[in-house]
Amino acid sequence: MQRYQVLTQNEIEKIHENSLHIMEKIGIKITYEPAREIFAKHGAKVDGDKVYFPRTLVEEAIKLSPSSFTLYARDPKNNVEITTEKTAYVGPYGSPFVTDLDKGRRDAKLEDFVNIVKICDKLENIDIQSHISCETTDIAVAKRPTTMVYNTIKYSTKPFMGSVYGYKNARETIELAAIAFGGLDEIKKRPVMASIPCTLTPLSYDDNQLGAIIAYAETGQAQLINSLSIAGMTTPVTVAGLVSLQNAEVLAGIVLAQCVNPGTPVVYSASGSGAEMSSGVLAIGSPEDAIISLVNGQLAKYYQIPCRISGALSDSKMMDSQAAYESAITLMMAQMAGGNFILHSAGIIETYNCTSFEKLIVDNEIIGYMKYINRGVEVNEDTLAFDAIEEVGPQGTFLVHDHTLDYFRDELYRPTLSNRKTYEQWKADGALPIEQVANKKWKDILASYQEPALSSEVDARMKKYMESL
Amino acid sequence: MQRYQVLTQNEIEKIHENSLHIMEKIGIKITYEPAREIFAKHGAKVDGDKVYFPRTLVEEAIKLSPSSFTLYARDPKNNVEITTEKTAYVGPYGSPFVTDLDKGRRDAKLEDFVNIVKICDKLENIDIQSHISCETTDIAVAKRPTTMVYNTIKYSTKPFMGSVYGYKNARETIELAAIAFGGLDEIKKRPVMASIPCTLTPLSYDDNQLGAIIAYAETGQAQLINSLSIAGMTTPVTVAGLVSLQNAEVLAGIVLAQCVNPGTPVVYSASGSGAEMSSGVLAIGSPEDAIISLVNGQLAKYYQIPCRISGALSDSKMMDSQAAYESAITLMMAQMAGGNFILHSAGIIETYNCTSFEKLIVDNEIIGYMKYINRGVEVNEDTLAFDAIEEVGPQGTFLVHDHTLDYFRDELYRPTLSNRKTYEQWKADGALPIEQVANKKWKDILASYQEPALSSEVDARMKKYMESL
Repeated sequence: MQRYQVLTQNEIEKIHENSLHIMEKIGIKITYEPAREIFAKHGAKVDGDKVYFPRTLVEEAIKLSPSSFTLYARDPKNNVEITTEKTAYVGPYGSPFVTDLDKGRRDAKLEDFVNIVKICDKLENIDIQSHISCETTDIAVAKRPTTMVYNTIKYSTKPFMGSVYGYKNARETIELAAIAFGGLDEIKKRPVMASIPCTLTPLSYDDNQLGAIIAYAETGQAQLINSLSIAGMTTPVTVAGLVSLQNAEVLAGIVLAQCVNPGTPVVYSASGSGAEMSSGVLAIGSPEDAIISLVNGQLAKYYQIPCRISGALSDSKMMDSQAAYESAITLMMAQMAGGNFILHSAGIIETYNCTSFEKLIVDNEIIGYMKYINRGVEVNEDTLAFDAIEEVGPQGTFLVHDHTLDYFRDELYRPTLSNRKTYEQWKADGALPIEQVANKKWKDILASYQEPALSSEVDARMKKYMESL
Repeated sequence: MQRYQVLTQNEIEKIHENSLHIMEKIGIKITYEPAREIFAKHGAKVDGDKVYFPRTLVEEAIKLSPSSFTLYARDPKNNVEITTEKTAYVGPYGSPFVTDLDKGRRDAKLEDFVNIVKICDKLENIDIQSHISCETTDIAVAKRPTTMVYNTIKYSTKPFMGSVYGYKNARETIELAAIAFGGLDEIKKRPVMASIPCTLTPLSYDDNQLGAIIAYAETGQAQLINSLSIAGMTTPVTVAGLVSLQNAEVLAGIVLAQCVNPGTPVVYSASGSGAEMSSGVLAIGSPEDAIISLVNGQLAKYYQIPCRISGALSDSKMMDSQAAYESAITLMMAQMAGGNFILHSAGIIETYNCTSFEKLIVDNEIIGYMKYINRGVEVNEDTLAFDAIEEVGPQGTFLVHDHTLDYFRDELYRPTLSNRKTYEQWKADGALPIEQVANKKWKDILASYQEPALSSEVDARMKKYMESL
């Protein structure tokens, strides 16, 4: 299906050239010595904490980045192909708070984390588990990455994401996962997890994130090299300037990954938003975010690298109509931008700060709409249906015609949540707003959830590894 | 900005050919004698109540239909250009019920009608008033069309729509409007209203609608020749078949309008949806509707005729998250389809049956997001901002840079409704769901509404005309 392209190829090339110019002339600030050494060894000019990238180094890294790879799942039917053409939907990432209609907004805890993993495991439109499905504030910070990876593997058979808290932590989550997937050598050939190291905008990288990039590249695990910007604060307020700057940052991270391990799977990842200039509060469920996503998607296609686009975003403080329309718009734009890895696909409200259990269910339905639209339309002699139209004739009905019986199961969307009943039926059912229907649905999922099998030997080894840290 | 095209040009041509084949071989059922006479006079084959259209007659009508025209408003700053490139947003049409958070769902009355007209007059993103902004169930049926047109002219200076209840009623609303716009001869040159005559799917037309088409064409007023279909009931369940059938119907109406008055302004209008096959209940806020809109938009572009796409649709029974995500998706698709006249742009819930006052406000905000996205992105040396990026450098801030000060007012979206505050601010403000904020906003609009000037002489003549009917 055609993508929605906001810029011409010539304009995309201008942004690309601007980014190369930024990388070569302004440079990226890198304080992490191991990264500086790698860059210098591959021909970048390192001057103090500034790294300047020659064009050829960047172009080579773009060429080395694969256009497709597979994330292998504990249950092979859940393997996910990440390509420049397909779209994978990923759970919520990073909220310190969770909320639901029963208990309200609260600090996120391990119990909430496990429940989100279980729900995402059962949601038909979520393909990949997040890493920080929510923060586990009741777990010691140092133990969180492995605790989260362990619980994600235990409660779900979908692929998942891993830690970016520095080289050591990243490496530990990879080694932990390796136990469940046949060892490090095995997962080097068949990546099982993806991380999302972030830039420090503008034009810099935190040491921990660079360490994580190196750890993932060494072990051949996938990573989303990500820049998140705030227009007019961390980047120029103009979209062209913002995207140029982000692109320079993302390309620098891709260069590092490809220097460490040529051909290692990377995903181009960038998102940017406006902010209230008076307060500095970020606005992510916004048309600014949507249009920046369109441009980022086009850039990634230009590089022929799969791209992550941020998805169902909202600045609303609760699961209300604002949360719904902002998520529908940003999710739709993520798909139209050609997003191949949509994070966050479900749950996020309150400008990344909170995950709503009801919104997991609402966003899962919105993705269903997107997937249906994305199928496109088949035009052939049979679907054109001239014969059926002739047989039914003016003022007839197609309801009982064979053509309808042959096609309706496939042609019509089947809602997972939306109410399509009459007003009278809806009233007889209790006149529920859809948020309350969503509330019942996630509770039903948890009530009927059954833990997938995990060999007790693997489980014991994972636990032992975690204790050894 | 590029449109989102779901079919290839070759596939569009296949649908076009299928439609011509349907018109020529299967025919359209027409019982209205004046229409049959016009068709026969222009070379169609009339056999009983069936009219068969030769290809040349259809192709000629397509050529005669203008690619752009202006709808003239009482206040010239509200004139709206309808072209194949621009998008006009139109109020809600036809609901027998209205609802709001204070009074709940009820039969729509003239008071509600007037309030909707006043609100749409003040909403920054609504360009054109509807005709049946809601039903006026407390007014005698025969008097409704003129009552609605009179009250729309009186309470708004935006362009508006007119009646399709048969030739006589249509003509009366046109003559009534003519009083306010300098007479029939004047509005023949400068159309002031648009109607939406509908087909009787499949492959037929009700007499009243054909009468209206003739009345609007005779007086040079605009009309949206419209087909509304239900997949698997009134048309084939396959999108290609559904659209082929609708297209045949719409083209037949366009032929009639162009036979009556060559060059008269018409808008290509079609929408189609799925239904619950078990209950037969239509589902309009659906991905089926969205994808059918994309194809209809492409067909209209192929004909170079402005198109109406249905917009902010929902099957939800209240202003909740379902109403919001369905409206955001269908509205966004209407715009991506290249819709030039988006009806219904605001307010509709409950599968056309009800207009929500709060949803008028919510949809107005969604349109704001769409308009921002539709502006596209400017790429030039100044917006690429290399110099600003160099001056700010790694880890700096753009907040106080001149480049930000020059651009932020234009680059950042200013919400008309959405909450972009922090959680704490929102809580301090009462922790309101957005539906309650919307409730306050429409009441504020009505409280501060001031009636536009209308000459007492024109007002008296309009009243006298209505009494004479």
